[in-house]
Amino acid sequence: MFLTRTEYDRGVNTFSPEGRLFQVEYAIEAIKLGSTAIGLKTKEGVVLAVEKRITSPLLEPSSVEKIMEIDQHMGCAMSGLIADARTLVEHARVETQNHRFSYGEPMTVESTTQALCDLALRFGEGDEESMSRPFGVSLLIAGHDENGPSLYYTDPSGTFWQCNAKAIGSGSEGADSSLQEQYNKELTLQEAEAIALSILKQVMEEKVTPNNVDIAKVAPTYHLYSPSEVEAVIGRL
Amino acid sequence: MFLTRTEYDRGVNTFSPEGRLFQVEYAIEAIKLGSTAIGLKTKEGVVLAVEKRITSPLLEPSSVEKIMEIDQHMGCAMSGLIADARTLVEHARVETQNHRFSYGEPMTVESTTQALCDLALRFGEGDEESMSRPFGVSLLIAGHDENGPSLYYTDPSGTFWQCNAKAIGSGSEGADSSLQEQYNKELTLQEAEAIALSILKQVMEEKVTPNNVDIAKVAPTYHLYSPSEVEAVIGRL
Amino acid sequence: MFLTRTEYDRGVNTFSPEGRLFQVEYAIEAIKLGSTAIGLKTKEGVVLAVEKRITSPLLEPSSVEKIMEIDQHMGCAMSGLIADARTLVEHARVETQNHRFSYGEPMTVESTTQALCDLALRFGEGDEESMSRPFGVSLLIAGHDENGPSLYYTDPSGTFWQCNAKAIGSGSEGADSSLQEQYNKELTLQEAEAIALSILKQVMEEKVTPNNVDIAKVAPTYHLYSPSEVEAVIGRL
Amino acid sequence: MFLTRTEYDRGVNTFSPEGRLFQVEYAIEAIKLGSTAIGLKTKEGVVLAVEKRITSPLLEPSSVEKIMEIDQHMGCAMSGLIADARTLVEHARVETQNHRFSYGEPMTVESTTQALCDLALRFGEGDEESMSRPFGVSLLIAGHDENGPSLYYTDPSGTFWQCNAKAIGSGSEGADSSLQEQYNKELTLQEAEAIALSILKQVMEEKVTPNNVDIAKVAPTYHLYSPSEVEAVIGRL
Amino acid sequence: MFLTRTEYDRGVNTFSPEGRLFQVEYAIEAIKLGSTAIGLKTKEGVVLAVEKRITSPLLEPSSVEKIMEIDQHMGCAMSGLIADARTLVEHARVETQNHRFSYGEPMTVESTTQALCDLALRFGEGDEESMSRPFGVSLLIAGHDENGPSLYYTDPSGTFWQCNAKAIGSGSEGADSSLQEQYNKELTLQEAEAIALSILKQVMEEKVTPNNVDIAKVAPTYHLYSPSEVEAVIGRL
Amino acid sequence: MFLTRTEYDRGVNTFSPEGRLFQVEYAIEAIKLGSTAIGLKTKEGVVLAVEKRITSPLLEPSSVEKIMEIDQHMGCAMSGLIADARTLVEHARVETQNHRFSYGEPMTVESTTQALCDLALRFGEGDEESMSRPFGVSLLIAGHDENGPSLYYTDPSGTFWQCNAKAIGSGSEGADSSLQEQYNKELTLQEAEAIALSILKQVMEEKVTPNNVDIAKVAPTYHLYSPSEVEAVIGRL
Amino acid sequence: MFLTRTEYDRGVNTFSPEGRLFQVEYAIEAIKLGSTAIGLKTKEGVVLAVEKRITSPLLEPSSVEKIMEIDQHMGCAMSGLIADARTLVEHARVETQNHRFSYGEPMTVESTTQALCDLALRFGEGDEESMSRPFGVSLLIAGHDENGPSLYYTDPSGTFWQCNAKAIGSGSEGADSSLQEQYNKELTLQEAEAIALSILKQVMEEKVTPNNVDIAKVAPTYHLYSPSEVEAVIGRL
Repeated sequence: MFLTRTEYDRGVNTFSPEGRLFQVEYAIEAIKLGSTAIGLKTKEGVVLAVEKRITSPLLEPSSVEKIMEIDQHMGCAMSGLIADARTLVEHARVETQNHRFSYGEPMTVESTTQALCDLALRFGEGDEESMSRPFGVSLLIAGHDENGPSLYYTDPSGTFWQCNAKAIGSGSEGADSSLQEQYNKELTLQEAEAIALSILKQVMEEKVTPNNVDIAKVAPTYHLYSPSEVEAVIGRL
Repeated sequence: MFLTRTEYDRGVNTFSPEGRLFQVEYAIEAIKLGSTAIGLKTKEGVVLAVEKRITSPLLEPSSVEKIMEIDQHMGCAMSGLIADARTLVEHARVETQNHRFSYGEPMTVESTTQALCDLALRFGEGDEESMSRPFGVSLLIAGHDENGPSLYYTDPSGTFWQCNAKAIGSGSEGADSSLQEQYNKELTLQEAEAIALSILKQVMEEKVTPNNVDIAKVAPTYHLYSPSEVEAVIGRL
Repeated sequence: MFLTRTEYDRGVNTFSPEGRLFQVEYAIEAIKLGSTAIGLKTKEGVVLAVEKRITSPLLEPSSVEKIMEIDQHMGCAMSGLIADARTLVEHARVETQNHRFSYGEPMTVESTTQALCDLALRFGEGDEESMSRPFGVSLLIAGHDENGPSLYYTDPSGTFWQCNAKAIGSGSEGADSSLQEQYNKELTLQEAEAIALSILKQVMEEKVTPNNVDIAKVAPTYHLYSPSEVEAVIGRL
Repeated sequence: MFLTRTEYDRGVNTFSPEGRLFQVEYAIEAIKLGSTAIGLKTKEGVVLAVEKRITSPLLEPSSVEKIMEIDQHMGCAMSGLIADARTLVEHARVETQNHRFSYGEPMTVESTTQALCDLALRFGEGDEESMSRPFGVSLLIAGHDENGPSLYYTDPSGTFWQCNAKAIGSGSEGADSSLQEQYNKELTLQEAEAIALSILKQVMEEKVTPNNVDIAKVAPTYHLYSPSEVEAVIGRL
Repeated sequence: MFLTRTEYDRGVNTFSPEGRLFQVEYAIEAIKLGSTAIGLKTKEGVVLAVEKRITSPLLEPSSVEKIMEIDQHMGCAMSGLIADARTLVEHARVETQNHRFSYGEPMTVESTTQALCDLALRFGEGDEESMSRPFGVSLLIAGHDENGPSLYYTDPSGTFWQCNAKAIGSGSEGADSSLQEQYNKELTLQEAEAIALSILKQVMEEKVTPNNVDIAKVAPTYHLYSPSEVEAVIGRL
Repeated sequence: MFLTRTEYDRGVNTFSPEGRLFQVEYAIEAIKLGSTAIGLKTKEGVVLAVEKRITSPLLEPSSVEKIMEIDQHMGCAMSGLIADARTLVEHARVETQNHRFSYGEPMTVESTTQALCDLALRFGEGDEESMSRPFGVSLLIAGHDENGPSLYYTDPSGTFWQCNAKAIGSGSEGADSSLQEQYNKELTLQEAEAIALSILKQVMEEKVTPNNVDIAKVAPTYHLYSPSEVEAVIGRL
Repeated sequence: MFLTRTEYDRGVNTFSPEGRLFQVEYAIEAIKLGSTAIGLKTKEGVVLAVEKRITSPLLEPSSVEKIMEIDQHMGCAMSGLIADARTLVEHARVETQNHRFSYGEPMTVESTTQALCDLALRFGEGDEESMSRPFGVSLLIAGHDENGPSLYYTDPSGTFWQCNAKAIGSGSEGADSSLQEQYNKELTLQEAEAIALSILKQVMEEKVTPNNVDIAKVAPTYHLYSPSEVEAVIGRL
């Protein structure tokens, strides 16, 4: 019943009688309004692909950044509030640079993901770095470290999971089903690119072009595909 | 339904059950009440043009500033709450001057835009520099740096996009359609001036004069047109 | 509809669904309850004239100060909450004195006006100098600097405009119309005095006397008229 | 209409839609519940007279202090919340002593009044010295400085006026009318004493005695009348 | 009407439309629930007597302290919330010790009372020493200083009065009437003891014993009566 | 009437119109839900006995601590929220250790009790050590100092009493009656042990065993009985 | 009745009229939604076993960590909000490392548990380390120190108990009954492993595999079972 729910969900960080945190659940809704992003892990590396919603032909497609580099060996795709994502990525970049400076080696993908989730968890605490509400964004973090390639998925509650493949955003439900059908651990990076793009194609309402999708890989270093590289993957479908 | 919405929209930074941030959406409404501003990017530089609402003949038109210089190589047009815009521009001026002082070179247009959006995003956080509500203003930031001319558009959520051309304010809907029809990448700066002014003319209810519009260009340095320069552009229509 | 409005207007600094800031609009109402003040800019200098509401014959008219000096070259007339105005004027006096001390020259009228508006804008921020509500006062700032004479008008939103002539307070609507009819840029200071006083006379319900109006000029230094000087202007009507 | 008002008057420092500050207006009501106090300025000095409500014969009349010394050359009568008044007087005493210490001369009556009003204005700001609500007290400040004798009247909004004569408290309306009838600038101090006491007699429900009124003068130094001095004035009526 | 009142009385320090501070009035109610205390001033010194409510025979009567020493020359009886009173007494003890240390002489009774009331007045201010609500206690402060014996009465509003005799607590109304009948300034200390105890006897529902009353005097130093001394006074009734 | 009450009882530290502090009263309710604890003072020392609610046979009885040592010469039994009690005991341990360190002698039982009550009183003040709500726990503090054995009882309001015998918790009403019947000052410590346990037995719903009760004495040092010592007391019943 | 409850349960740390803290009770509900975890103490050491909910075949089972190491001699199983648990574990790791560093010896299991509960208790206090709401997680802390093996159970109220065996999470009710039937103190570690897993099997809706359960022991050091070790235990059922 709706009326009862409203009694609890305005306090940013308060339990409902059923033990739920509504503001976190509502932030998760923000992600369901976001564009779709897909990640696949192969032995050769990790592939990320995102839909870019270009609402006007006068927009510069390259300025709609939904895949961003965190460090040489790590990048992430995002869905939800992009301004929130930028804050998280900026935090991750500082953390990974500090780690390199302090220990002379790259930060592992798991530690970086943990650091992002610690920040996400502490919303509403009045800390210097935390926000007054949950971050309204999910990330797919692709990386390559001493444990080989890895793919992490984070949500607004500050929880993370390691995955072989994962979709987030408005088309995630259908995309996740397709991933479960098509994924296997022996995929090559090239096959993963094609699967990611073909699934994205299904959930997008318009034709796939180098203007409205972005692809990146971490294999073993981060690389965002140029329009012609994206074109080539489209050609292979 | 309206009643339900009011349960969520008074907390300045709280998600609604659908994952929306109402205070940000309401701030965007403030911009729809504002005067119209237009920006166009050409190879030669960027043109900004704004409508000035002169409510009384006794007002000094030059004191209604809706285009402001940020740095030698950058300026912006604004729509919405002008007092909020001044705070943002002041912040950008300090940032760009600090950058010149620290690194001996101009700050890029994207970094400056990012710095403005970081400030805009953190409303309600109780920081020294942030406000207790979203900034009720959109900016068209025109600049010229090592990547050539560029035009950015920011909104109250702290999101920004790079554009070839963009209109903001109460007449933005019609103006954006006209821009899509008339814009192409091969425009000269002179053609861009004429397009900006002719579109502004369509959305304004009164005759265009050097008193009720302002034009500026960044090509490659910021220049606000004198009344006679504006007169000349009007003459060319 | 009134009931809906009350949902938004109690938060001191919150947008309504239409993008409005109600507390600022209500503060503007406070000014409509205030006494009328008028300013006119001429080539020779700026004239300020205010109505003084002397509610009791036992009140000392000179203690009802509605025109105050800011610096040698600047003064202001006010309408609304007088105690708020005094805080603003005190702030402006400190700013202009600091400027003289730091740079060895008077602060420009625009910079001073900007400094006042910065303070007015930041209400509700919990700063040392700002208030928890908007300042309930409008100012007409008259000054003379390197750009010659100038007249600025500020409102509680922290916005300012440069004007040739302007009226504020409960009689401002009628007074503004009269000003538009009678003002021209070639007025002498003496003509401006007479226009200001004759318009004030129209909006006041009682006879104009040196006791119930104040006149000041900045030409080029601030001077508050003595009762006999006011008498002389009355005589010229 | 009452219901609408309650929407605004609980925030200590918030404008109503009509531009009113209700908490200040309610504090002014607190003064209308207070005992009556009267001040008269003559060329020879200023007279203050107050009603003392002695609710029990076991109360020590001299401990009901409603006229207090601020400095050698200044004192005040009060009406409203006495505990609030004591805070204000204590503040004024510190200010005037600091002034003497810093500048080697007494603080003027106007500066002292201004300092008190600055404190009164900043209620609800969370400052060290300010209160969380308006001060519920009005003062009649009598003093003598380089400008001769003067009488100031302050209210909870932080506004002040200079007066020739003024009454505050529950009987102020009738007392003010009587003052307007009987006051003229040529009164001697002795005549002023008699007028003050005779007016007080009208508004008090019981017989006037040295126990239930206090009289003080500043001529040119502060002096609180002894019971026999009060008796003498009563005798002269 | 009750409903209207509730609109104002929850803010700890907010005026109602009639200019009242309800939280202070409610704190005064807390005292009407308290046990009765009586004070009488004589030329020889001041007597304090209190009722002790011993709810169980297993309670140690001497641990129910309702008369406490402040300094050698000062003590107080209390009614209301005992834990609040202890905070006030502790504050007074620190103040009087600091005074002795700084000035080498005892603090006067009036200054001590004033210091207690300053603390009481500032509730809700967020200060280090103040509380978030009014202190729910009244004190009868008995002392002897350079001005001879004195008796002060304080209430939760931070107001104080000097009295010849005064009763507080649940039986104060009847006790005050009896005091007015029986008090005169020529009483001896012994007579005052007997009056205090006989009045206490009237308002208490049980037999007076050394277990359920406490008596103290300041003559000129503070002395709390031993059970046998109390017994002796009872015997004299 | 219930509805009216809810208007006041949510503010953690606000008076109701009748002068009551509801949050404190509700915290006292928390104790009525707690397990029963009993204390008796004899000439030889003080005995404490508590009921332990062992909800599962897999729970380690010794980990359900409801009697804790404060210092060598002092311990306490508790009823209510155990986590709150631990905070209080920890505070008392620091205080007593600091006292030993500073003064080279044990802290008296009354001073320790006073220190605990000072902390309890200041809930809702935002201090470092205080809580945002009242402590939901009552303590029976048993000690032995220069004044011999003593037993104190504290409640959530920050008030304390010295007792000869006292019961707290859900069975306190019946237990207090039994204590009044059976207590006399000439009891030996052995007799006190037996009385405490026999009363506990009456209020507990299950058989008394070394697993579900704890006994401690301070005579003159704190000693918690081993299961076999408890068994011995049970045997003597 | 539900409506009444909502009056109290939104304040994060406020008593209801019955003396209950609803936010803590709601946090306990969050745990009843969590996956099941089981702990058993034997003479040889402690066994922990948890259900892992693997919602997608593309999830990496090893990244769903519900048993974590705290120190060499201590680990814990968790149920409820995993992100909250990670904050607690991180706190415990810092505490145990600091203890080793300061005292050169491992921290005892009880001290570590106490440190975790201190943090849990102080929610809503605005401390650096505490949260604004209760931690929505229960822990089973297994350890081995100078007192041999031990198993502690903590809940969101900051209370802890030492247990021989305990189940938490959605299946805890049935699992606790089974534990009471099957547990005895003479179990070997191997028997304990089998009991834990067989009970887990009953409450899980799917087949038990090395992918959807985790097992760990502290005997005397922490060891998380590899998939093949888990397989072996499954084989023994």
